[in-house]
Amino acid sequence: MEIHTCLASHVAAFNFTRDDLLRLKQRFPRITLGIHQNHADLLEAAGTAECILTWEFEKAWYPGFPNLKTILTPAAGSDWVAADPAGRVRLIHGTFHGPLLAESLLGAILFMNRRMPGMIRNFERREWDRNIQKDCRLLANQTVVIIGLGRIGGECARLLKSFGATVIGIKRDAQRLPMPLPDVDVRPVAELETTLPEADHVVVILPGGADTDRILNESRLGMCRQGAFVYNFGRGNAVASEDLAKVSDHIGGAFLDVVDQEPLAPDSPLWSLDNLMITPHSSCIYREYRAAFVDQVAAHLGRWLDRPTQSGR
Amino acid sequence: MEIHTCLASHVAAFNFTRDDLLRLKQRFPRITLGIHQNHADLLEAAGTAECILTWEFEKAWYPGFPNLKTILTPAAGSDWVAADPAGRVRLIHGTFHGPLLAESLLGAILFMNRRMPGMIRNFERREWDRNIQKDCRLLANQTVVIIGLGRIGGECARLLKSFGATVIGIKRDAQRLPMPLPDVDVRPVAELETTLPEADHVVVILPGGADTDRILNESRLGMCRQGAFVYNFGRGNAVASEDLAKVSDHIGGAFLDVVDQEPLAPDSPLWSLDNLMITPHSSCIYREYRAAFVDQVAAHLGRWLDRPTQSGR
Repeated sequence: MEIHTCLASHVAAFNFTRDDLLRLKQRFPRITLGIHQNHADLLEAAGTAECILTWEFEKAWYPGFPNLKTILTPAAGSDWVAADPAGRVRLIHGTFHGPLLAESLLGAILFMNRRMPGMIRNFERREWDRNIQKDCRLLANQTVVIIGLGRIGGECARLLKSFGATVIGIKRDAQRLPMPLPDVDVRPVAELETTLPEADHVVVILPGGADTDRILNESRLGMCRQGAFVYNFGRGNAVASEDLAKVSDHIGGAFLDVVDQEPLAPDSPLWSLDNLMITPHSSCIYREYRAAFVDQVAAHLGRWLDRPTQSGR
Repeated sequence: MEIHTCLASHVAAFNFTRDDLLRLKQRFPRITLGIHQNHADLLEAAGTAECILTWEFEKAWYPGFPNLKTILTPAAGSDWVAADPAGRVRLIHGTFHGPLLAESLLGAILFMNRRMPGMIRNFERREWDRNIQKDCRLLANQTVVIIGLGRIGGECARLLKSFGATVIGIKRDAQRLPMPLPDVDVRPVAELETTLPEADHVVVILPGGADTDRILNESRLGMCRQGAFVYNFGRGNAVASEDLAKVSDHIGGAFLDVVDQEPLAPDSPLWSLDNLMITPHSSCIYREYRAAFVDQVAAHLGRWLDRPTQSGR
């Protein structure tokens, strides 16, 4: 099998090295592996590539790749690799993000729950105010609503259950769970608006796509409890900056790992809202990221290749 | 039984209200309950008090309380209620802090693990730097050493195990665990120095007392791995500010909920160290705090009082 990669990135955690990728060659010595640093080099391999590992792939490129059967991309969201308009090439997204994102999300929930924006202001003023956290409650006595209960949302739900939180998941197909989630109350999207008033924390983990644009708009944010905390850890299209700015006095605060325009413009009103924290789409930035994707690719190759020679192991 | 309370506090979370305490009278209608706002009022009840619930009690007061059998104090640490020099009065500390402190500690560990001091500086400069967290690793691939594995340390260990972390506990009597901790490696204090180099995160949760003064001194902090994170969530005497300041280039950072002088002086060098966060001894500040102590007192009363009348329930 002829595999070509285009997995360079200016983000260190996502910049696959030669060593990262050569693990595939060691594990499956019979593959042909072309490691490319940019799109131009990748496109030169169009005639012979059977499998591509890439961050990006444009719709217009497909006709030029007659032998291409599969694209694997590390991303969990649907924004950087276009689907094959002819429906011939199979596109496989990363499925390893759950444990990484869940740990980041728990950090964000505990950050907001423990009133860290106010605690940090206090710290920066060198003050000793023991009443900023007086309304804090244990997660065990709170309800978290997760909008988007795929593999990633499922891992988040599981970790939240370790804290004893009540977890409600909103899922398009509430009958098809990504994993067993025995103590999670799963509801269809039609129940989103009646569910929002139950939440102390509203977590959005959606993969992007026009059908989820502004799913948490001003009106729905207004349905949340006074003081509820909002998190966006999926894609920025789901929660518009302008909607969030309008409800900033109603909600308790927000922790956004993604925003509707990335990088967020320095003059965005979001930066100056109280009780808001923004991280630069970094919820999966862990040293484990690259190895986790290579492991996923290896698992697929193991299934596809007939009796792979294991001598290189 | 004649019970007197002195549980006012300028910290809202710790300021027991009349309603908090009247729950005891409702549960045990036969008790006599005196609710006092200050020490002078408490001392007026010295002649008849059999049980006292208080934040503070001085050694010199004991002889004046001839009928006193028990003091219950919400604090987990040993600093505010003196032991009875005559050994007659039983002192019972709060035992309910574990779930509260564990959640705060996890927030602190995720805060440091996700490089939040640097992320917050970046946020305040309205920048979008996706490389600050490039060396982050999952807790599942890290080792946390907990110095002080009592009830509170045990709850912290359990919650850390939900993240898959390797947890090592240092305990004076490594044979006597506060609860079943099947996956925790418990070691005696004599192994502290050989254990420190294994830790990615060093958590101190000791109750105070001269025998733990500066247990994590400059020399031992130097034995920690380059880049290890340090947490003090017990009492400030265990980690001296001057020791921490000296190793600030060696460790990765510190999150202190307690310091050796509280409130921390505005001119302390700690405030200006990089990668340091300080909270004002607030790890147990939750709305659940007061009810949890009243529940603990009620459990004791239920055992002590013969056939308590339950009609008031």
